Amino acid sequence: MKRPHILIVDDKKDIRLTLEITLRADGYRVSCAASGEIALDMVNKDRPDLILLDIMMPDLDGYEICRRLKENEKTRGIKVVFASAMRKTKDKIEGLDIGADDFITKPFNIPELLAKLRVHFRVMDYHRKFEKLVSFAHNINVLDIDTMAEAIKNELGELVTADRFSVFTTDKDGGHFRLIAHNHEENEMDGLEMDFDKSPLMAEALRRMEEVSESDFSSSRFTTDVKRDKYTDDYALCLPLQAGSELLGVLNINGNSNGFFDNLEFNFVALIAEILSASLKNLRQLELLRHLAITDGLTSLLNHRVFHERLSSEFDRSKRFKQPLSLMMADIDFFKKVNDTYGHPVGDQILKAIADKLKAHLRTVDVVARYGGEEYAMLLPQTDAGMARVVAERIRTDIESESFATDKGKLKVTVSLGICDTTAGDFDSGAQLLSKADEALYKAKNGGRNQTVIYNQKDSL
Amino acid sequence: MKRPHILIVDDKKDIRLTLEITLRADGYRVSCAASGEIALDMVNKDRPDLILLDIMMPDLDGYEICRRLKENEKTRGIKVVFASAMRKTKDKIEGLDIGADDFITKPFNIPELLAKLRVHFRVMDYHRKFEKLVSFAHNINVLDIDTMAEAIKNELGELVTADRFSVFTTDKDGGHFRLIAHNHEENEMDGLEMDFDKSPLMAEALRRMEEVSESDFSSSRFTTDVKRDKYTDDYALCLPLQAGSELLGVLNINGNSNGFFDNLEFNFVALIAEILSASLKNLRQLELLRHLAITDGLTSLLNHRVFHERLSSEFDRSKRFKQPLSLMMADIDFFKKVNDTYGHPVGDQILKAIADKLKAHLRTVDVVARYGGEEYAMLLPQTDAGMARVVAERIRTDIESESFATDKGKLKVTVSLGICDTTAGDFDSGAQLLSKADEALYKAKNGGRNQTVIYNQKDSL
Repeated sequence: MKRPHILIVDDKKDIRLTLEITLRADGYRVSCAASGEIALDMVNKDRPDLILLDIMMPDLDGYEICRRLKENEKTRGIKVVFASAMRKTKDKIEGLDIGADDFITKPFNIPELLAKLRVHFRVMDYHRKFEKLVSFAHNINVLDIDTMAEAIKNELGELVTADRFSVFTTDKDGGHFRLIAHNHEENEMDGLEMDFDKSPLMAEALRRMEEVSESDFSSSRFTTDVKRDKYTDDYALCLPLQAGSELLGVLNINGNSNGFFDNLEFNFVALIAEILSASLKNLRQLELLRHLAITDGLTSLLNHRVFHERLSSEFDRSKRFKQPLSLMMADIDFFKKVNDTYGHPVGDQILKAIADKLKAHLRTVDVVARYGGEEYAMLLPQTDAGMARVVAERIRTDIESESFATDKGKLKVTVSLGICDTTAGDFDSGAQLLSKADEALYKAKNGGRNQTVIYNQKDSL
Repeated sequence: MKRPHILIVDDKKDIRLTLEITLRADGYRVSCAASGEIALDMVNKDRPDLILLDIMMPDLDGYEICRRLKENEKTRGIKVVFASAMRKTKDKIEGLDIGADDFITKPFNIPELLAKLRVHFRVMDYHRKFEKLVSFAHNINVLDIDTMAEAIKNELGELVTADRFSVFTTDKDGGHFRLIAHNHEENEMDGLEMDFDKSPLMAEALRRMEEVSESDFSSSRFTTDVKRDKYTDDYALCLPLQAGSELLGVLNINGNSNGFFDNLEFNFVALIAEILSASLKNLRQLELLRHLAITDGLTSLLNHRVFHERLSSEFDRSKRFKQPLSLMMADIDFFKKVNDTYGHPVGDQILKAIADKLKAHLRTVDVVARYGGEEYAMLLPQTDAGMARVVAERIRTDIESESFATDKGKLKVTVSLGICDTTAGDFDSGAQLLSKADEALYKAKNGGRNQTVIYNQKDSL
């Protein structure tokens, strides 16, 4: 907790002044109010953490102020300590029962007052951490890595007393770390990806599947030479983020101003790690399902549904930026014969092999989908039909010249291709483009197969 | 907080006795220890919420006991209030700075002591709610409705002071509530599903998209006649669970022992509702994706991948329970002609219509999948080939006699079917069953189409 804010409310100037000087000297941020009305006004403008409240004042008395603060949801959390010359038990009890946290009697015993304030802020600090942890747990409970990373970046620093933190995720297959959130100063760290062995500390935590801590990190065996120059961390704590035996990432805590963690801090950080793990686990579960939802199980190409979504968005983009878009359909010739002669398993091997061929000949910006049984559909952004034909012919001749290995020996197949680009007509939708590419494919089939045909409006009329 | 537990530690018997009687009379659960050693031992066995701790004792003094409690992660959360005749500021400060929460001087001012204890338990109660809320938020952060419901059932009752709660989810299309967790006594409520209009209170909360509360529920306009006899709730609060404008469910809070909520309670419950909503939103997102991942986009039948999963599990079940399983393949005759003659959109309409026919003729326990282009695969548990043939023939004749409405007019199609059941051979896997059903389908095709063929081992040899 950084410099707690105390509001002194007393109608006597000398008391306000004495307290102000004393509390400031003890490191607090202090403000003063000479009356109850002023105090309530100030509370609404700049909420203090604690109010040192006189009881007997000319306008509103301390009890009334306390009552109003505790009635209001927004000011309810402010601690109230009555400071009064009234020594009667009845008065003290009344103050405590309307919601005050403590009662100290005037004249002040300053060392005792300061000790009591330390207790109140210690309790408050601990409590606020849990309030913040509720918010943190709530805000990272999302199925979107960017929103989650943003919440971690914004809130994790408030939760730990350490100077620096960083959260890395691991990829499913292991071997790589990806930095998703940190509060280090270096901006060049954003989006950092690295091999496991680049961070001996993180690698060790993952190997052990439990936390690794170093109280003198910069001189430990985990410090790489690069780091030794860059950091002078006094301590480093690295916790694996995991769900059961599945590794999801790591949480790093570093700092040099606070010394090493105590147990309480460690347990709190371990709780944070658990909460982070739960959210990362959900995310991984979602990503797995998303993969299944968008790809064709056999070929791992995009599926029919996603092709239509991508067709629609690529068609819109092509219109907006006035760039050509080519749609290419490919169909395996006489595929039914393959299935009927050699059985479905062999047919499936051919379907996969052709999918791999298509992917190999296309760019990463292109879209390749399994459209139906033995039919594939492709989108080539910023590519006109002439350029697409070059690609199509490369694919066709490559497939024609290859013998595909199957369980029933090497097999030869050919493909027919149909192409239509957005300049070939006055198209309103991706669906029209698709139907014209299909028309071209039909012509390629009828024209003897193993060939590429570009849609031509004149032929069509 | 139910009956806080106070441990009195004092070496003087008369003080222990006086305090014990006084605190018990005030509603606390009380235990006593005559020495520091005994106290530490008792703390480990039955953790108190607060310790009223004498300082000067023969064996361990109060400071040492406090230090040990605060060093130990497990006992750290216990509040310590020093009760001592020592009035020196130095002593008080030492006590507070080693972790105590308060310091009261002997001889006791009993009313003041009781007032101070009320304050400590008020603060503790508030703080514990947030600790519990962290745990709640963490435990419902799962992508599984049953685990989530279990966590709600176990933990929500501890979070709210109300007597009863219930959480309902709404279905995506609206119209229905499903009870997922509650702490009402009636067991028959488990799994309850009902129309919106069966609960005027919940329906109103959903309509308004904000909370509805009634301080005298049983006589309010929201009480249905059925409920009026059953409950005598003094208050009812119903909060919609939502993500943006999307409705996910409702949280109901009812009770008759505590009177109506105050603002603090309400805000806390609203926070719980927000946290619940986030988890339900994730779950809905996952369910949507799961639907996409397991179904074929065009026909909404299960897809190829899921069919293989179900085939494997149904095959195992059939083996284990020695019940026949029939696998049925269906293929639309001359489907390529439909596509080539009328275009893909019409072909798609036929594919959907046939899918609907298949579903209409099968039971809910059966599995119907789109296997490939114009091929469907079905699993009929506890059904032998003879019984499956009856179903197949019903399907075949139904399709044969129908004219399917398409964009290019009414079309007639036929299907061929192949069946194999688990009794037809000594099969080791679902894949073998599939290949034999495929063989039968091939025979149906070669035999002139529009017919059903059952696999027969003798024919195959």
